[in-house]
Amino acid sequence: MKKILIIGCGLLGSSLLRRIAKKKIAKNIFVYEKSKINITKIKKLKLPGIIVKSLKDGVINSDLIIFCTPMSEYKKLILKINKFITPKTLITDIGSSKIETTKTIKKFLKKGIYWIQSHPITGSEVSGPEHGKENIFEDKWCIMIKEKNTLKNNLNIINKFWKKIGSRTVVMSAEKHDKIFSITSHLPHLIAYNLVKSAQDFEKKQSYGLIKFSAGGLRDFSRIAASNEIMWRDVFFNNKNNISKAIDLFIKNLNKFKKDINSKNNKSIIKKLIQTKKVRSKIIKLKQDINKPDFGRN
Amino acid sequence: MKKILIIGCGLLGSSLLRRIAKKKIAKNIFVYEKSKINITKIKKLKLPGIIVKSLKDGVINSDLIIFCTPMSEYKKLILKINKFITPKTLITDIGSSKIETTKTIKKFLKKGIYWIQSHPITGSEVSGPEHGKENIFEDKWCIMIKEKNTLKNNLNIINKFWKKIGSRTVVMSAEKHDKIFSITSHLPHLIAYNLVKSAQDFEKKQSYGLIKFSAGGLRDFSRIAASNEIMWRDVFFNNKNNISKAIDLFIKNLNKFKKDINSKNNKSIIKKLIQTKKVRSKIIKLKQDINKPDFGRN
Repeated sequence: MKKILIIGCGLLGSSLLRRIAKKKIAKNIFVYEKSKINITKIKKLKLPGIIVKSLKDGVINSDLIIFCTPMSEYKKLILKINKFITPKTLITDIGSSKIETTKTIKKFLKKGIYWIQSHPITGSEVSGPEHGKENIFEDKWCIMIKEKNTLKNNLNIINKFWKKIGSRTVVMSAEKHDKIFSITSHLPHLIAYNLVKSAQDFEKKQSYGLIKFSAGGLRDFSRIAASNEIMWRDVFFNNKNNISKAIDLFIKNLNKFKKDINSKNNKSIIKKLIQTKKVRSKIIKLKQDINKPDFGRN
Repeated sequence: MKKILIIGCGLLGSSLLRRIAKKKIAKNIFVYEKSKINITKIKKLKLPGIIVKSLKDGVINSDLIIFCTPMSEYKKLILKINKFITPKTLITDIGSSKIETTKTIKKFLKKGIYWIQSHPITGSEVSGPEHGKENIFEDKWCIMIKEKNTLKNNLNIINKFWKKIGSRTVVMSAEKHDKIFSITSHLPHLIAYNLVKSAQDFEKKQSYGLIKFSAGGLRDFSRIAASNEIMWRDVFFNNKNNISKAIDLFIKNLNKFKKDINSKNNKSIIKKLIQTKKVRSKIIKLKQDINKPDFGRN
């Protein structure tokens, strides 16, 4: 590719920037970033690429545009780039939910312009270009969304791009994507936020400190509950139907668990705890986590 | 101390064994372990200490006995050691809940014998003597339980012991202990088990694999949900009243969260997500977790 434009240079945008430069995937990389604080950081970090002040400068003649902003920014940005973009430019993104963004793209993107949605399964609880890492996508899944009218050629281009980045790619529908990630990602984040919130409520009510005793479990959840609030609000709102269903399933199971505990149902509890243990082995086997006790942190 | 007896040589028992030997805290360390598999492992690992075949050999003349078995074993063991134990021997343990064990000790331990309960806040999702580490208690909190009739001198002995091990010690009542850890440890474990269970249910219903996409959050929970099932059954049963209340608070908050998502209550969601983020900083500041994004695992 001759020219790639990255819109939004936070954790993942800056990671892509670093990686594209390192792997020489494009001749020129342009970066559009609206936050002045981030621009200062990017300059200080001496990241590769050219910062453009206007979207127009970035969009014109680019082969690929990658949206790396929170999803709530898409509409505004689409309406702007519509003015300059031509069919020779392909668009992709890294958003964590897909049904709502599909609607936004269909409704607002200029006809004749193609956007293949992507979702690399990676990230961290920290935000900003200073935390980006060029190898953050390596061997991680990247989901690409295929719709009815998706052109095979465009899908191939985006697939090739992620392969060059180092991701493992897989194609699915927006509906399947949003269902799967409501369970493996969105619900876990919501649960983590909710657990930390409950600990805060409890601390307030009891008026003694308990956060200092969080090494017995709470600390793990607190990491996820420190994730970027704008990004996660967008995910929760965009995928609210699937997340609602996931919450209902979770509460149903939790009430059963509570009943088993209160009635000291040994058989049921032991069965549950043994079953869930197997998932960990599966996750390790599938290389979705490191094979070290306690994440190797001790 | 001249002689310490460790009853139960799994993850924490074997860690204590290694540490006591390394720090030369006792002249002799005796180990009583009922699992033949664990005994074979201990011998193969060439762990320090003397394995005793009968409890009697271990108990007689010991200055300190440390119960490192699941809590459900306490009663049976107490009834056995009652036959040999004299008031010169002090007892402690490492159990994760305290109100029920207080009752068991009061009801079954021979009069005139003292037991100061301890709870070192450490552990891992793996079990067995092969995973023990001598530094697993270092700089970690160890809670000691003070009851109305606790003798100051005995508390001092146990406090001194944990200090030598390398722990930071704190004294509280069984009631306060069980309340605090219902929130910082027991509920997080239950929630993790329940989330993994819900993911399994969902996978079965949808009949497509989703565990392979667990890097977006689920994997963190799967680690905790791989913890020892006997130990955690005991904790859930022993602390069921506090845990029930914690579950109720959690579900109440989760329903509020769901309502905020479904009504797209931006202000409420953002406030929640920003508040919970602060807990992470607090946990890092209190040195309850490592100060590296993603637990430093990537």
